[in-house]
Amino acid sequence: MSKVLIVYATDYDHTKVCAEALARGVESTGGTAIVKDAGDATGEDIEAADALVLGSPVHMGSPDWKIKQFIDQQCSGLWMKNAGIGKVGAVFGTGSGFGSAGGGIELTLLALLNNLAELGMVLVPLPKNTENYADGGLQWGPYARVHSKDTMEPLEVSEVQLGIMTAHGANIARVADAVAGQALFKP
Amino acid sequence: MSKVLIVYATDYDHTKVCAEALARGVESTGGTAIVKDAGDATGEDIEAADALVLGSPVHMGSPDWKIKQFIDQQCSGLWMKNAGIGKVGAVFGTGSGFGSAGGGIELTLLALLNNLAELGMVLVPLPKNTENYADGGLQWGPYARVHSKDTMEPLEVSEVQLGIMTAHGANIARVADAVAGQALFKP
Amino acid sequence: MSKVLIVYATDYDHTKVCAEALARGVESTGGTAIVKDAGDATGEDIEAADALVLGSPVHMGSPDWKIKQFIDQQCSGLWMKNAGIGKVGAVFGTGSGFGSAGGGIELTLLALLNNLAELGMVLVPLPKNTENYADGGLQWGPYARVHSKDTMEPLEVSEVQLGIMTAHGANIARVADAVAGQALFKP
Amino acid sequence: MSKVLIVYATDYDHTKVCAEALARGVESTGGTAIVKDAGDATGEDIEAADALVLGSPVHMGSPDWKIKQFIDQQCSGLWMKNAGIGKVGAVFGTGSGFGSAGGGIELTLLALLNNLAELGMVLVPLPKNTENYADGGLQWGPYARVHSKDTMEPLEVSEVQLGIMTAHGANIARVADAVAGQALFKP
Repeated sequence: MSKVLIVYATDYDHTKVCAEALARGVESTGGTAIVKDAGDATGEDIEAADALVLGSPVHMGSPDWKIKQFIDQQCSGLWMKNAGIGKVGAVFGTGSGFGSAGGGIELTLLALLNNLAELGMVLVPLPKNTENYADGGLQWGPYARVHSKDTMEPLEVSEVQLGIMTAHGANIARVADAVAGQALFKP
Repeated sequence: MSKVLIVYATDYDHTKVCAEALARGVESTGGTAIVKDAGDATGEDIEAADALVLGSPVHMGSPDWKIKQFIDQQCSGLWMKNAGIGKVGAVFGTGSGFGSAGGGIELTLLALLNNLAELGMVLVPLPKNTENYADGGLQWGPYARVHSKDTMEPLEVSEVQLGIMTAHGANIARVADAVAGQALFKP
Repeated sequence: MSKVLIVYATDYDHTKVCAEALARGVESTGGTAIVKDAGDATGEDIEAADALVLGSPVHMGSPDWKIKQFIDQQCSGLWMKNAGIGKVGAVFGTGSGFGSAGGGIELTLLALLNNLAELGMVLVPLPKNTENYADGGLQWGPYARVHSKDTMEPLEVSEVQLGIMTAHGANIARVADAVAGQALFKP
Repeated sequence: MSKVLIVYATDYDHTKVCAEALARGVESTGGTAIVKDAGDATGEDIEAADALVLGSPVHMGSPDWKIKQFIDQQCSGLWMKNAGIGKVGAVFGTGSGFGSAGGGIELTLLALLNNLAELGMVLVPLPKNTENYADGGLQWGPYARVHSKDTMEPLEVSEVQLGIMTAHGANIARVADAVAGQALFKP
């Protein structure tokens, strides 16, 4: 079964809790999930996995600098040697979401997806038939809003949001099972 | 005072109603607003204005084809002859917003802004201190969600949302007043 | 073997020629390619295929209005009924590319990918080890520049560019073979 | 006259050299330019300026982690207290540009612009009539490719590219002169 590496940056553990919910989805399919903080994950961890999932809070419309540091210092090495090509990639996010439209989550997820596309990974969206999609975020991946809309008080990640993260993890593992070991991209 | 052209595409008049609210904001500053459906607006209309504002519903994560047709057929001619350079540009949107993060409004607004940037226009964001920003959309421009989150029943554009559109219109007119007639971009 | 639908908009046949080169890649794997102009393709065509590939010229930083009309009128119906979920999606583009950085091709390809992500499709990038990647475009998909950099005279799509399109078509067909018939996304 | 703060991240001094060329453009209008490495610039520096310009190399399709750290740690504080609203913002970039379409520069510049839009800044594009625009990058801002297309050998930033950076700096200063001290965005 597939081996899925989930790398996150976090300030208040919201994104970490989401990463752990994704891992439960991977495991529900019989796959193996490795969950690592962006400061601890390495290029070797990616090479050993069938899929890479990146999660970040939204900060000023783009990913947290700590996951960008992981991308610049660890992922770019794989890019140089073509070591990510044909693996599976996916993303998720959290945020305070000030405003009524995600507060920049779309470009945040696309920044993470851009790294995965450059690595040559097959990308897994969040399909519209996911249970509770109305609370699910975006087609690019799930998003947990963790502040109250009107008071901006912090919230915990809800059970519904965690359920969507888990569904996403299971989807990613199934795609990884389908493509692992296939020679998809012949040079 | 400034002359602001507001061009919209609409299916159910939501985006049209928002365009009219923007026009009231322009007029509140003493400026003149011209509101046109995308099928009726021309390159000459843009040339005669100090600012161009584009509004669209979100369809599958990008603007309505009817405003894209206006861009391809009318705006591209201005691009060829450098006739938009130094004017002011801004955007707004509407949508059903399925999911919890705007349903693709960010890339929709960026597609419209990309046209305005190619025309060489100074771009006006929606600042965070706008009254009722929590219902306001995004930093790129206001967004009116016009479907209920859980039932997806259609909604009217709310008074609060219209107020944000009006504030955006006034902002755009003030920026146009500040830069009109200045030689900002010397070749 | 997989059945791949390739839908394009074109003004001067550059994008059509690229679509045909992609089709040859699909066929090289034993798959079936159907190539259709955006004005002729239907939702039924997509439902009958394992993969959907969209191609467009860049116009003012986003796709040609004619392929956007196809998306709004044909793809959105599939979205309503979840009929695209678990298929495979990919994109390509052409353009005059004025400037030194693609002239807006990145947001153009992302607008097309956004539609495919909303449909719930697994997305195929262009990997860096593709032969002649230096002329290949972007990680999101291949791009053929069809105007001279300095004179802006029109060019034919080069053999090298067509070869990259063909490689992309073969990649897409192989991914479609790997995932077709799998229950990747369980509601 | 206007005071323009230029903040850059750099690995091999390419982006620093571009920042200095922008500064010369600011000074050519009679304005004052302050050039700072992302590790040294502070929120107070932004508050003291009329305009903020951000420059970064492209790394895996998004900005260098060091400028993202500046954004997360310094710019977000201004966002909290609305201290950037009504200032002027602009961007520029450098990169190896592998492929034929900027190698991710468009999303890189948009990530930087997203921060500036969230701060409530009026945004300055690179107009098409800029001298040598064919080597100039994108409508969002200038881009200096600093590696050979075919060999990927490193290059110096060319005189033509530096000239475009200087023209951009002068444009930014003129926009800042036009809007400084105006009450553009009334809450």
